[in-house]
Order: sequence, then C-alpha cells, then structure tokens
Amino acid sequence: MPVFLDTQDASFEDAFAALLGAKREDSPDVDAVVADIIADVRARGDAAVLDLTAKFDRLELTAETLRVSADEIDEYCASVSDAEREALETAADRIRAYHARQLPDDHMWTDPEGATLGWRWSAVSAAGLYVPGGLASYPSSVLMNAIPAKVAGVGRLVVTVPTPDGVVNPLVMLACRIAGVDEVYRIGGAQAIAALAYGTQSVAPVDKITGPGNAFVAAAKRRVFGKVGIDMIAGPSEILVIADADNDPDFLALDLMSQAEHDESAQSILITDDAEFGRAVAHAVDERLKTLERRAIAGASWRDYGAVITVRDMAEAARLSDRIAPEHLELCVADPEALSQNVTHAGAIFLGQYTPEAIGDYVGGPNHVLPTARSARFSSGLSVLDFMKRTTLSRMTPEALKAIGPAAETLAKSESLEAHGLSVRARLDRLND
Amino acid sequence: MPVFLDTQDASFEDAFAALLGAKREDSPDVDAVVADIIADVRARGDAAVLDLTAKFDRLELTAETLRVSADEIDEYCASVSDAEREALETAADRIRAYHARQLPDDHMWTDPEGATLGWRWSAVSAAGLYVPGGLASYPSSVLMNAIPAKVAGVGRLVVTVPTPDGVVNPLVMLACRIAGVDEVYRIGGAQAIAALAYGTQSVAPVDKITGPGNAFVAAAKRRVFGKVGIDMIAGPSEILVIADADNDPDFLALDLMSQAEHDESAQSILITDDAEFGRAVAHAVDERLKTLERRAIAGASWRDYGAVITVRDMAEAARLSDRIAPEHLELCVADPEALSQNVTHAGAIFLGQYTPEAIGDYVGGPNHVLPTARSARFSSGLSVLDFMKRTTLSRMTPEALKAIGPAAETLAKSESLEAHGLSVRARLDRLND
Repeated sequence: MPVFLDTQDASFEDAFAALLGAKREDSPDVDAVVADIIADVRARGDAAVLDLTAKFDRLELTAETLRVSADEIDEYCASVSDAEREALETAADRIRAYHARQLPDDHMWTDPEGATLGWRWSAVSAAGLYVPGGLASYPSSVLMNAIPAKVAGVGRLVVTVPTPDGVVNPLVMLACRIAGVDEVYRIGGAQAIAALAYGTQSVAPVDKITGPGNAFVAAAKRRVFGKVGIDMIAGPSEILVIADADNDPDFLALDLMSQAEHDESAQSILITDDAEFGRAVAHAVDERLKTLERRAIAGASWRDYGAVITVRDMAEAARLSDRIAPEHLELCVADPEALSQNVTHAGAIFLGQYTPEAIGDYVGGPNHVLPTARSARFSSGLSVLDFMKRTTLSRMTPEALKAIGPAAETLAKSESLEAHGLSVRARLDRLND
Repeated sequence: MPVFLDTQDASFEDAFAALLGAKREDSPDVDAVVADIIADVRARGDAAVLDLTAKFDRLELTAETLRVSADEIDEYCASVSDAEREALETAADRIRAYHARQLPDDHMWTDPEGATLGWRWSAVSAAGLYVPGGLASYPSSVLMNAIPAKVAGVGRLVVTVPTPDGVVNPLVMLACRIAGVDEVYRIGGAQAIAALAYGTQSVAPVDKITGPGNAFVAAAKRRVFGKVGIDMIAGPSEILVIADADNDPDFLALDLMSQAEHDESAQSILITDDAEFGRAVAHAVDERLKTLERRAIAGASWRDYGAVITVRDMAEAARLSDRIAPEHLELCVADPEALSQNVTHAGAIFLGQYTPEAIGDYVGGPNHVLPTARSARFSSGLSVLDFMKRTTLSRMTPEALKAIGPAAETLAKSESLEAHGLSVRARLDRLND
C-alpha cells in the first residue's frame, strides 16, 4: 500500500517531511575498491582493464578485441528488426531537432567605455559515454547522451558498454551507429571510467564523461571529477502526477507504474484535489499490478515509496511539487500551461493527459537524463551545453583602460596584489606620457 | 629560473609534456577529517559549528552572534575609504552589466507533428557563497560570485566567511552589501559548507554552494555534491601570455607576475615567436622580482613552474595553447582577434597589449572565477547559468501522440518496460475508439 496523505490532516506536515526525507537508496560504500581499480588502470593501462573485465564480466579480451570493430557493429545492426530500427530513427530525429535548438549564441559588444567584451562557445573535443550492461542497457539512453554531444560538435565520441559473458545488445550498437558514436569499447565498471579519464594504450582519454551506471561507476565518476568533467550522479527515478478528477484513472496508473517498473527504489506520487479520484487511481494501479511483467519491481516501489496526496486546490499542489522538485512532473489538469507557471523546480514537465511521461523517455525530443533526488532545485537535464564550454573575451582600448584601469589598480592594492596593480599602472603611465 | 623551451629542439615534446604534467599542488588528504566535521554538523547543528569555530578560528560565538548583523555590516562599510568604495562600485556595475547579458531565453515551439516543445529557465532559490578568510579574503571574489547569483534571480544569497581571531575584512562586507547578499555568517571551513548544505538551527540550508576555499573546503564541497549543487573545485591559478616582439617586456613581466604573486603553485607561461624577446621578458621579470612586495611567492612560482617557450609561428602557439588549456590567455599580437579564432580551450582571453589580465580580475566585466588545471577543456567560468536550471516542457495533442506514440511503444517493448508502452497504448486505443 502506498501512503495516503491529505493536506487537511493535522499530521500532514510530518508525513510529507517523512516522504521527502525517505532514503530510497543505500549505495554500498565501494569507494576504496574503486580507488584501487582506478590506480590499477592508471598504472597498468590495458593490462588492468583486461584483467578486470575477465574478473567482473567473465570475458577474456585482448588489446585487439577491446574495441568493437565496425564490421561487428554492422552485424549487430543488421540483426535489428525494421520496426525497431525505424522507431530508433524516429527517436533520434526528434531528439536531434530538439537539441539543435539548444546551441548557444556567441556574443561580442563594445561598451560605452570602449571595451569590447563577449564570449564564445566551443565543443568539448572528446567525450565518453558510459552505457550500462545487462538489463539497464537502454538504447534510448545512448541516443539521449550521444546526440547532444554530436549536436554540440564533439569531435570524438566514445562509448564504453560492458558485455558480461560476451552478451551484446544489438539495439545499443544500432543506437551508437545512428547517433554517430566514433568508438565503442566492451568494457564497464570503474575500469571503464578510469580508462576514459586517464587513457590506456588502446583507449585515448576523453575530456568529459556522461551516462548512468551502478555504484562502482558512480563512485569512479565522483573520483575522476576535476581530471575530466562529469554529468550528474543519477539516483533512482521519480514521477509526480498532478491530476484533477477529469482523467482516466487507468492512464495515470500506467504513468505511475512506468516509473515504478524501473527500480524498487523508484518513486511514484499522485497529487489530486479529489480524494475519491485518488482512490480510484490507486485501485487502477492494483489492477495493473496483477498482470504487469515487472509487477514484482513496480509493486515493491509503489508499496514502499508510492504516495497519493489529496490537496485543497491546485495552487497547493504546485507548492508541494516545488518541495518535491520532481524529476518528471505530469500536469493532467484543465489548463496545464497555467499550472506549470506556478512550478519552479522540476526536471521535465509533461502537459495534459495525452503526454504520458514515456513519450519523453523515447520520442518527445527533450532529454530523458534528468535531475533526480530533489536535485531539480539546482540542476538541469542533460543538454547540448553539457558538451560545450564558454571562453570569455575582452579587449581594452587605451581609452577604456584609462577609464576603468584606476579602479582595478585601487582594488589590487586593497587586496595586496601589487603586481596586479602595477600591470595596469605601467600601461596607464605609458598612455599618459 | 623558469624553463626555456624551443619547439625546434628535439627534446621539446618531452619537456612540454613534463610541463603539462607537473603536479603543482599536493592537497593534503583531509577527507576523513572532513567527513567527521560534516557528520558532527548534521548531528549537532549550531553547537557543532560553534565548537569548530572556537577550535579552528579561535573565536567564541553564540547562536546569536554567528550571523553578522546589518548594523555591524553598516559599521564595517562606513570604515571603507571613498576611493575603495567607488572602485568596488565601478567593478560591481561592470560585472552586473556583463552578466545581465548571460540571462538565457525560454523557448516554446510547435513541431510539424503538433507537439509543443520547449524549455524554461528558473533561478536556484537559495545559494551559499564561501569566502575565504585571512589573506585570500578577496572582495573582488565576493562580487564575482554574488552578482551572477543575483542577476540570475537567486532569492536568498548567503555568505559564509571565517574571521579567525575575530578579524573582519571591511571590504568583504562592503562587497556583500553592494552585491545584495542577504545573510552573512562568520564561519568557515568544512563546518560552513556542512551548515550551508544541511542547515542548522541558525543557518537555513541552500541549494547551491560556490566559492573558493582551502583543502578542507574543497573536500567538503566534493562530499556534499549531489545534496546541493557546487561549482568547480578550483586549483592554483595560471596565465599563458602569447606575444610577438612588438611588446614592452616589462608589461608582460608584470602580467606574468600578477599570476605568480597569487600562490607559489601558480603558473605563468610566455609563448613567443622571438627567442630574444623571450629572454628580454625573463630579464624584466628578474628586475621586477627585486622589488615586488610578494617577491618570495612570485619568485618561487616563476622558478618552479614558469616557462618561456619559443615557437616557429603563432599558429604553433595557438596549438600549444590548446594543449595547455589555460585559465587566462593573453594575446599580445598584431591581430589578437584573428589569433583567438585558432584557440578553443581557454577560460578567458585578453586581447591586445592594453588588456592586462588584472583588468579581468576586477573591472573588465567577465567573471574571474575560471577553470584551472586544464579544465577549460570541459568547463567554463562562473556565470549566471550556474545559478539557474532548465525545465523541459512537452505537450502532445491527440494527433501528435498518434504520430509518434507507436515508436515510443516499440522502443519500450524492446527495453522490456511494459508499463511505459502501455501508458502510450492505452491512450492510442482511446483515441482510435
């Protein structure tokens, strides 16, 4: 049973705080193991990666077979059905079109003092994308990471994907091909992150690493942060559905279960202004849980972390939503655009009853890599900007330096940075000669 | 003596690689101590912060005196000279004008399938800015962190600044006032980061923490990353000056020393196409090092990490610059704009001989918080975007869902996520009824 809360109950604040504070993930402390793996890869390069792959993935590779060859990728791609290929291509086209609009503009201007100022964006030269193996090896995630990188202009895009016991997901290979990935290596875990960050004889290092992974991968990314850039450390997925009674309870039940089926630690919450409707949705969930393939996972998530919250009105719903700062927010109300204006902290918003969150997972266009665990308070979904960086530019004319240089000199002196001040003063003296 | 390199020497590649790989900072491993401090602040709140402040800053505070009152700030501000106040205001105005141009636009559009897509930016609600105490307590850094936050629209901006033995820098207080900081606490170290991230009885938690600090502060920021957002972990400062012989060697010597005087671990590099000019600059540095107030620091930096590199031509200089990925890059050549087009990885570029890097530290307008230690390969200087996050939006019409829903259903099935597919299918079935 999920929890049923009502904002008019005296106990609501405590119960809501408990819901927000629930620790849904107990990450094992693998930091020491990961530190050793990274040190091993830095010291021994390929040899360490091959040993660790034999150990963890039960797969004997050589320096020559670390990389998946173009011919092998061709073969895997050929094994994919036409329907799946077309669906992936539809998804890729839509993701590309959305992300192309994120390309930022460069700017240069001259201010009243005569200083020319501005900035210029450029792409990261080389990026690595971690793709999990096994059950969580999602071709859609390959598209969601690789396409923004390519739109940004990343010159060299590398994928690492573990293939335990040698099992390859052909759709992942096809997604790499469609997205324009340049190199694919069949390695995973902390050893893959170390190889991407520091390089080995066979894997040239990259500048930025993105993509989801298990606790080992997350700990390794945290450790190499600074040596390379990383994306966020993702937690278990969440959805918040805000709905009035004018909805089909089964639609919303399926939306709630589409998060719950990801992971027993996933969280699905319904907020409604109609308690009876809330019960109807919960009933619809129970019905679906009788037959869903992943009912064990979805049922555990719904039982342990699910919630149905009844509010006085939709303004209150929006306020609760901002406290939750959900990764995914569905607004199934009469005027979802208006309600969305009252929401500030959310990774992605899905407007209206014909926009199930699953559309956003695959083909909507926006990225499905989104901030989890309340981090939508301060971070954004993956975008083209994650694969770019900005260089600021400035040029002083003699007149501009005369106008603003003395203030710089004063501040340098007040910070006891004499050479800073002198570097301005020497030029001003020349100009005043 | 700095190293003198020439790209035409056979040993150049090895020597340049050694220069790039030089480990300039030996951060002590304070992680265990920091973990204990964070746990203590989470468990005991104010009491822990007060105890740790007594211990590390030799300062006895109470919950009532943790915060610097508005009256106290008034008094500190009144003690600042008019010249310094005007210089800070000039700097603040220019920084604000530059950063106001970084405010990103929201976008919404409808695509050919009828899907409405877009994104919306919003500010982080509350941000914390760490300001170091003692010698590195720079009012300019307060402006550079606080102004972008306020331009972004951060509602609550908190500063923590340690005041060892109770010593306060009045200019820091004035900078807080000018930048619109809302709360100032006289606490520092890992305990300040823990208080900002988790909150105490007296300090409400924030969503994002920026600002430089020592090894304890850096380790604490790395640990709270995820619970809150953080900016980069800054390393020692660097400058690369690319100059032809048509420059005053003393100007460039001062520019090189303005980095070197920050820190013995700072790095200053000159690249020139004229070996004789390179020697002239090195000579000018030696002359300045006879009298500079901070000659001990600047001299050590120049001796241990300084370099003068002679190149065949400026195209080669640009290629080397991209391998260095400098925090600060001065282009003192005839056509600096043209040369800048050949440079991809740099935090900030200063164009022409009248744009000393010190201008950018104070009054140019661009941010002086920039990527160090080659991280300009993948990251940018601080900006308004660091205090904002993006929410993606999508709305399907029935027609749009009919057009793209089947592809989502296909991909959901191929990823064995049945509820995802059913959430689309149930709606399509309704529409086809």
